[in-house]
Amino acid sequence: MSGSKRSLRELLRVPTGGRALDLGAIQPRATPGLPSAEVVGHEPKTWARARVAAIGAELGRQQEMLFASAKVDPGRGRRLLLVLQAMDAGGKDGTIRRVAGTMNPLGLHVRSFGRPTEEERGHHFLWRIRRALPAPGYVGVFNRSHYEDVLVPRVESLVPERTWRARYDEINEFEAELAEGGVTLLKVFLHISYEEQLERLLRRLDDPRKHWKYEPADVDTRARWADYQAAYAEALTRCGTSRSPWFVVPANRKWYRDWAVANLLRETFEGLGLSYPGPTFDVERERRRLVAQRPGQLRPGGAPKLS
Amino acid sequence: MSGSKRSLRELLRVPTGGRALDLGAIQPRATPGLPSAEVVGHEPKTWARARVAAIGAELGRQQEMLFASAKVDPGRGRRLLLVLQAMDAGGKDGTIRRVAGTMNPLGLHVRSFGRPTEEERGHHFLWRIRRALPAPGYVGVFNRSHYEDVLVPRVESLVPERTWRARYDEINEFEAELAEGGVTLLKVFLHISYEEQLERLLRRLDDPRKHWKYEPADVDTRARWADYQAAYAEALTRCGTSRSPWFVVPANRKWYRDWAVANLLRETFEGLGLSYPGPTFDVERERRRLVAQRPGQLRPGGAPKLS
Repeated sequence: MSGSKRSLRELLRVPTGGRALDLGAIQPRATPGLPSAEVVGHEPKTWARARVAAIGAELGRQQEMLFASAKVDPGRGRRLLLVLQAMDAGGKDGTIRRVAGTMNPLGLHVRSFGRPTEEERGHHFLWRIRRALPAPGYVGVFNRSHYEDVLVPRVESLVPERTWRARYDEINEFEAELAEGGVTLLKVFLHISYEEQLERLLRRLDDPRKHWKYEPADVDTRARWADYQAAYAEALTRCGTSRSPWFVVPANRKWYRDWAVANLLRETFEGLGLSYPGPTFDVERERRRLVAQRPGQLRPGGAPKLS
Repeated sequence: MSGSKRSLRELLRVPTGGRALDLGAIQPRATPGLPSAEVVGHEPKTWARARVAAIGAELGRQQEMLFASAKVDPGRGRRLLLVLQAMDAGGKDGTIRRVAGTMNPLGLHVRSFGRPTEEERGHHFLWRIRRALPAPGYVGVFNRSHYEDVLVPRVESLVPERTWRARYDEINEFEAELAEGGVTLLKVFLHISYEEQLERLLRRLDDPRKHWKYEPADVDTRARWADYQAAYAEALTRCGTSRSPWFVVPANRKWYRDWAVANLLRETFEGLGLSYPGPTFDVERERRRLVAQRPGQLRPGGAPKLS
């Protein structure tokens, strides 16, 4: 946690130097960057919850500065967009609830992307994404994203290889365009193990309050685990740029996942160098106008009933 | 808080029997429905914060049942829409942060309506409202709403009286249509006093972190306080129906305001009689499919690298 330690952005970043990512080499139970046991204590879960709450307060402050800056200077278009990808039961929903949930819903813009609708299938794959972008000043969260279009169609052979393969370049161009438009992307892959997914899916079956989250089709997707991991590895390598890298968060331990994503958000905010904008009016003049106003001087509607 | 006490919905509801609402008779510092001092103790603020957190946990559960129900049965269209109206500095933003912020952002849909854009002015006043409705399963929050269109244009004489007056019926028809479509409205007016508004606006001037929230035009609006109160009183009377009543929350005390809105939300949710939907699949069969799956039996992509 000290300044001398490496940031989570450094520790979790997917290298962009052309070397292919080996997801199998990243332990889903690992906890990179976690402070020493002396700091964390015997109950890492409790420690992490408290840290996420504290970081959340800072995220709320940063979010407000972003919102305020955009109100005063909308043309700059500055906004932050967290893109979450994971295998089924990988923890996207929980991350949104626990981490994005620390921010002010007024300035949050959460969108979930499921199987494309008939209308969406009639358009370019980025069409629905463009329509769902957060407005300037907002923090956006994408629960799945345009990356689904280099995963599912590839593994399920829904389109020819040349089609999904061309999408890497299309995505890179699209994201460069977003950056030009003021959008700072934070792309996070929540990395769980094959065994952890089984446990989580079985838990959904065990708990009637979680049945609605269970999809029989998830079992078929699970049967292609290795293919999906390979598709992820390639997407995360080909679509990570120095401006918009990918981050892999080991996500078997939910408390670490939340702590890591909260830190990635904080570090990304800090990189924006935000501040509260100065006044766009004469503060003293406004104070005089307000104080001078008296009920007796009100316009024709008459004096208000004071209460 | 006990079952024998009157609900907040009963206590704060604007009568729909034709009698015009007298906003001046409602004390903005009042705390209707608050339990006795024995229960609340000497620090009502602390007590209310804790209660809002507890009610928030229940709101999160209700929100999840709504989301789950809509996933299983989207045709029913069920959703909840909180409409917040208030004078400037009335506490809309704070209510959203503190009350809506207890829910899962994944199932929240917050929209703020400012001065209409040029595009919006080219359409019927309900056009931008219809486009901003929450999808089935979501909890929507409108930070200002279509009610602005029977307030500002009336007080500022932007349209002829017959135009804004006709809007009461248009709104009632629109809201009846929403109800048919599964939308449960919760319409809340946050009621602050003329003096409280002054204090809050001055506080915005005192704090450089709040300058972005200050609008010089708010002083001009404040000069027409009585006209706006009259416009509110008429709108809340004419557009309150037994199916979709208005509620007035005394809002000078922020802790009471948050507690009251949280309770109104809870009571409204309870009126929906939500429950978790049953499984749409054979639970035992799914369990067998999952457990039977072995890495060695995976499709061509090969066995996953287990980690």
